[in-house]
Amino acid sequence: MESVDYIICGDYILTMNEELALIKNGAVAIKGKAVISVGDSADIFKRYTAKDIIGGKGKAIMPGLINTHTHAAMVYFRGLSDDLPLKEWLEKHIWPAENRWLSPEFVYDAVGLACLEMLKAGITTYHDMYFFGDSAAKKSKEMGMRALLGAGILDFPSASAKTSDDYFSNAIKFINNWKGDDLITPSIAPHAIYTCSPETLKKAKALSEKYGTSVHIHLSETEWEINYVRTLYNNLPVEYLESIGFFDESVTAAHCVWIEDKEIEILANRKVGVSHCMESNLKLASGFAPIVTMLMAGVKVTFGTDGAASNNDLNIFSEMSTTAKVHKALANNPTVLDSRTVLLMATRWGAEVLGLGDKIGSIEEGKLADIITINLKKPHLSPIYNIYSHIVYAARASDVEDVIVDGKLVIQNRKHTSCSEEDILIKAQEWGDKIAASNSG
Amino acid sequence: MESVDYIICGDYILTMNEELALIKNGAVAIKGKAVISVGDSADIFKRYTAKDIIGGKGKAIMPGLINTHTHAAMVYFRGLSDDLPLKEWLEKHIWPAENRWLSPEFVYDAVGLACLEMLKAGITTYHDMYFFGDSAAKKSKEMGMRALLGAGILDFPSASAKTSDDYFSNAIKFINNWKGDDLITPSIAPHAIYTCSPETLKKAKALSEKYGTSVHIHLSETEWEINYVRTLYNNLPVEYLESIGFFDESVTAAHCVWIEDKEIEILANRKVGVSHCMESNLKLASGFAPIVTMLMAGVKVTFGTDGAASNNDLNIFSEMSTTAKVHKALANNPTVLDSRTVLLMATRWGAEVLGLGDKIGSIEEGKLADIITINLKKPHLSPIYNIYSHIVYAARASDVEDVIVDGKLVIQNRKHTSCSEEDILIKAQEWGDKIAASNSG
Repeated sequence: MESVDYIICGDYILTMNEELALIKNGAVAIKGKAVISVGDSADIFKRYTAKDIIGGKGKAIMPGLINTHTHAAMVYFRGLSDDLPLKEWLEKHIWPAENRWLSPEFVYDAVGLACLEMLKAGITTYHDMYFFGDSAAKKSKEMGMRALLGAGILDFPSASAKTSDDYFSNAIKFINNWKGDDLITPSIAPHAIYTCSPETLKKAKALSEKYGTSVHIHLSETEWEINYVRTLYNNLPVEYLESIGFFDESVTAAHCVWIEDKEIEILANRKVGVSHCMESNLKLASGFAPIVTMLMAGVKVTFGTDGAASNNDLNIFSEMSTTAKVHKALANNPTVLDSRTVLLMATRWGAEVLGLGDKIGSIEEGKLADIITINLKKPHLSPIYNIYSHIVYAARASDVEDVIVDGKLVIQNRKHTSCSEEDILIKAQEWGDKIAASNSG
Repeated sequence: MESVDYIICGDYILTMNEELALIKNGAVAIKGKAVISVGDSADIFKRYTAKDIIGGKGKAIMPGLINTHTHAAMVYFRGLSDDLPLKEWLEKHIWPAENRWLSPEFVYDAVGLACLEMLKAGITTYHDMYFFGDSAAKKSKEMGMRALLGAGILDFPSASAKTSDDYFSNAIKFINNWKGDDLITPSIAPHAIYTCSPETLKKAKALSEKYGTSVHIHLSETEWEINYVRTLYNNLPVEYLESIGFFDESVTAAHCVWIEDKEIEILANRKVGVSHCMESNLKLASGFAPIVTMLMAGVKVTFGTDGAASNNDLNIFSEMSTTAKVHKALANNPTVLDSRTVLLMATRWGAEVLGLGDKIGSIEEGKLADIITINLKKPHLSPIYNIYSHIVYAARASDVEDVIVDGKLVIQNRKHTSCSEEDILIKAQEWGDKIAASNSG
């Protein structure tokens, strides 16, 4: 009997591997950071002895969910203002709050809340776009969460940098500080076409190539953006980025709401990953991204929560359910976005888009152990006919019970194993009270 | 000091009364079935002494949610088949399962699961449409839940009746069995225009008038139905029902997806209540009900979950969030369906549409105590700026902590106070295993 750190077992193992193998009464053996065996529970228990056993009867085991687009620290602006026109929301509430409050301390504290929320919702990896990356990295690591942290690049000043050059030098420092880290992967995040000049975009792309990082950008989120790019560059946004050589498989493009078929073809050819932020797009009335067409064209579409200021939570379960449902109605076809496809978008495809497809996104021998357990003994999950359908259409973030990241048990029985949740909530409200006092809304 | 049964207190009391009074650090005194006082917490505790205190710091207190359209017993078909064309879903899975399994015992057991799920999701009243009403009534009452139970009427045979006359005599018996009950209110539920002849519809309406009950009907759910009614009656569905004198404020019309402006005017004039079943309409690709136009025309729009076979849960929190978001995108306007309006739809307006507006739907002196508490001490509910926005956009069914129905504490700390949840889940899976074995899918 080989000794391992954990055996995770349950009624169902949704491996999300290439064959979409579903193992009933299965188990996963974890040693160090890695999955060393997946299979029939009786067999695993015959071959391995574990220091700790997780899961059990009435549990589903699956890969951690991947959030491919967020601004984690914006959780502190959750619900600061809602039901407003986008311009008023940004200009009168969000931007003033950011200008007034953004700092390394703000990001450090806020990312603690964001990681706690995400981990308890079964998200094990997120791709961020924000500022003060060192603070975000330090806190994410403390929380035990895997993150790609996109160093934000803009052409105008913000709390973190005065000039475009400052953003780039911050980004290079950040990359050097964290390269080779187990949990933190730096990426480059030029904010959008309408906030970065062609030179800035090209420079960001060159930097990503030099350092071998992913690229994270907002793309074609609103109709306004399309008109802006058309006027300035006489092109559609995707065509424009293609023309400056911006695209390859390192790029995650968030939103892609206002996208024409010829642009979808470019995204497919260049293997650009798309982060679909359904709930944010709905709530801000940005529109409906044509992801069914994208999927048919071979574009890898994944899920992003966007920031909690716009959405208002960091919850891939509700993104999965809402996305699967809304696109059925839009397509006038209940067979599109079936539950297996939706779950692939939230797991393996998410990992692939972030360049981590060989490490996470499915439960397979040799991959890192980023795994969650779902408690199925709930009225809203009874009875069970089809586990995929349950996870997508009926399960909730609150059904996540245990979360393992990089082989470490981070959430056990819905409690973080090392940090004080109470402290994180108290700190959040302290910041919230200060922010509310300065909010004009 | 007057002695009362309960004092419920919290950081926020969302009264949902006419003035939408929001009481910070408030409390509610309950004696017997009724709310006898609502106000400042310090003041309530000065005036009343309670046998039991519910809620406290970090809680929001609000009226129980009202589910105006469901088929509760269909929880046993949750996830039996998904991602299929409507016709195949109905004809190959749902109808065969109903034909094979429907019985008084099935309904009795299934309604137990449905009530448990709804109560734990903060729903205190539901309007049902199904068969074997005595079983549903008995079980709902045992579970401590308030229900309008619509006796299903069809022109074709089913497990509960052979002829149209049988359905009517069942309905009359059911009404007589339960009239005057504290929790159970019988209603009449002619299924739809396409399953009931004009004579049947008129007879159902006359019966409702004779016995003073509500009427519950499916209306304009799919495009197919519009074409059917057009062909058969040379009219739009709402115009047709208007022409046979079917409409008044006793009617709850579920779905109303395919509705033209002139029909909306009729619904408004006749004070017909609409049950918006957003998630069901999305998942079955039925379409988008024009509820923003309805609300502007003065139609009282409320929330229905529909049956869990189509949706796949009984969750008004997710209906609120999805509805508020999707209609913003459809209207290309983020200001429509603001959080207060959405919460009114889920509480006071729901009660009014069901003819219970004088009894429930808001927290006010003299009304019955149907009240829930929400635990705000959660990462996804931190920090707090606006409680209405939090409830609609960020809160989840699992944040409901305590549920009081008719002055009785039914759910305490997310546990049913009198029934065995374990038994209900075991029974659900036993039925599920039998149903799965007979399902061709």
